[in-house]
Amino acid sequence: MQRYFVKKEQMTDKVVHILGEDVKHISKVMRMDVGDEVICSNNHSRTVKCRLSNLSDKEIIADIIETLDPKTELPVKVTIAQGLPKGDKLDLIIQKGTELGAFAFLPFSAARSIVKWDQKKAGKKIERLEKIAKEAAEQSYRERIPEVLNVHSFTDLKQKISSYDVVILAYEESAKRGEQVQLAQQLASVTLGQKVLVIIGPEGGITEEELGQLTEQGAIACGFGPRILRTETASLYVLAAISYHFELMR
Amino acid sequence: MQRYFVKKEQMTDKVVHILGEDVKHISKVMRMDVGDEVICSNNHSRTVKCRLSNLSDKEIIADIIETLDPKTELPVKVTIAQGLPKGDKLDLIIQKGTELGAFAFLPFSAARSIVKWDQKKAGKKIERLEKIAKEAAEQSYRERIPEVLNVHSFTDLKQKISSYDVVILAYEESAKRGEQVQLAQQLASVTLGQKVLVIIGPEGGITEEELGQLTEQGAIACGFGPRILRTETASLYVLAAISYHFELMR
Repeated sequence: MQRYFVKKEQMTDKVVHILGEDVKHISKVMRMDVGDEVICSNNHSRTVKCRLSNLSDKEIIADIIETLDPKTELPVKVTIAQGLPKGDKLDLIIQKGTELGAFAFLPFSAARSIVKWDQKKAGKKIERLEKIAKEAAEQSYRERIPEVLNVHSFTDLKQKISSYDVVILAYEESAKRGEQVQLAQQLASVTLGQKVLVIIGPEGGITEEELGQLTEQGAIACGFGPRILRTETASLYVLAAISYHFELMR
Repeated sequence: MQRYFVKKEQMTDKVVHILGEDVKHISKVMRMDVGDEVICSNNHSRTVKCRLSNLSDKEIIADIIETLDPKTELPVKVTIAQGLPKGDKLDLIIQKGTELGAFAFLPFSAARSIVKWDQKKAGKKIERLEKIAKEAAEQSYRERIPEVLNVHSFTDLKQKISSYDVVILAYEESAKRGEQVQLAQQLASVTLGQKVLVIIGPEGGITEEELGQLTEQGAIACGFGPRILRTETASLYVLAAISYHFELMR
């Protein structure tokens, strides 16, 4: 069944008011009509099945027929801090990371980031990434859309570290030196509901200096297996490993 | 250090004969010269560090200075049987799957595959995918290039099942019904060195009929976590989970 996110205020006890681009999607793309059913989430832990009762060009009203409990959120809150990568790799990271359960994305300017974001254009870029996250969240049946934070400087990132319970730093040199125990050890220390930050460098990885500063703040350098992963693959690896650890190994 | 795969016969006890496109890559793209060092793998478990000793337009000769043991192969041999997906998704699956350690890729025509491969063009397509696998294997420091098998019919796929030790079938309905124990149980039954086949449907998944026929042959339907993954994400999920299970959790 087709799924849509609506704002909290668009969902009352009895009905959902569907607005904006979703109206066009339901009536023009999906060609649905009165009586057809969709699933709506209010992005605040309420997901309902509802039946379309009134369609206009500007608004669709749907009567709630059942409250659902999809239980599709990862039981730990994983924020992916991604050093700005080249090209459209951030699109892939956000689309796949959303499918794999990320709680939020925090892009940051790393020393080896070749791409620099013009602050004037950053708003538009974040808007575009938020749209990718929304569509991926609908497709993968998430209960909430992961937040896409504004681009952080390295200093801002460092200051955020203390607000997370566990901070994992993907470190290629760890993989090369055969470090293969830290990730599992760190995950074993996480309890359900805790906040995990995973820091991933851009192409070329993080510098020795960044490593020093991040580990000083409490980040733990971890190898993600013995193969050298591209920057966009590292986030997918760690999210899948976290899902396997907390959702499937029981 | 830059890495290249060469054919078995190009690597003798003492020297490596680098041929073809790699010659251009070393001399024109990387602008290396006599005395520079590269890593070469013969795709048959021999990886060496060597020093360029003679460069011509057609061949580069490099003296072997050290035999390496990168230990970057997954300890279980995972073949990804992928129902033909739309567009260029197979490129992504092969690039990322190679980074994540896949042993081989087996594309197959599933009932819901919209794409059909023209047998006349299949050779060229496989060649292109093999090139993607080679480049990803070099980049991720693999010891071997995963094999890209020719496209199989569903009947051919079924006949292959008995040659694998464990056959995992990604089944979306399992995820929807909350089935979350089979993947970990199946992985726990695998011993190092065994051959695992992971079957993943195209967009829209496998049909009930395909499910019946595959499970009859011994495939086990598994959920890959509670979220609905796109077809190209499923292979990445399972490879990362297998790496985490066999390489990091010790």
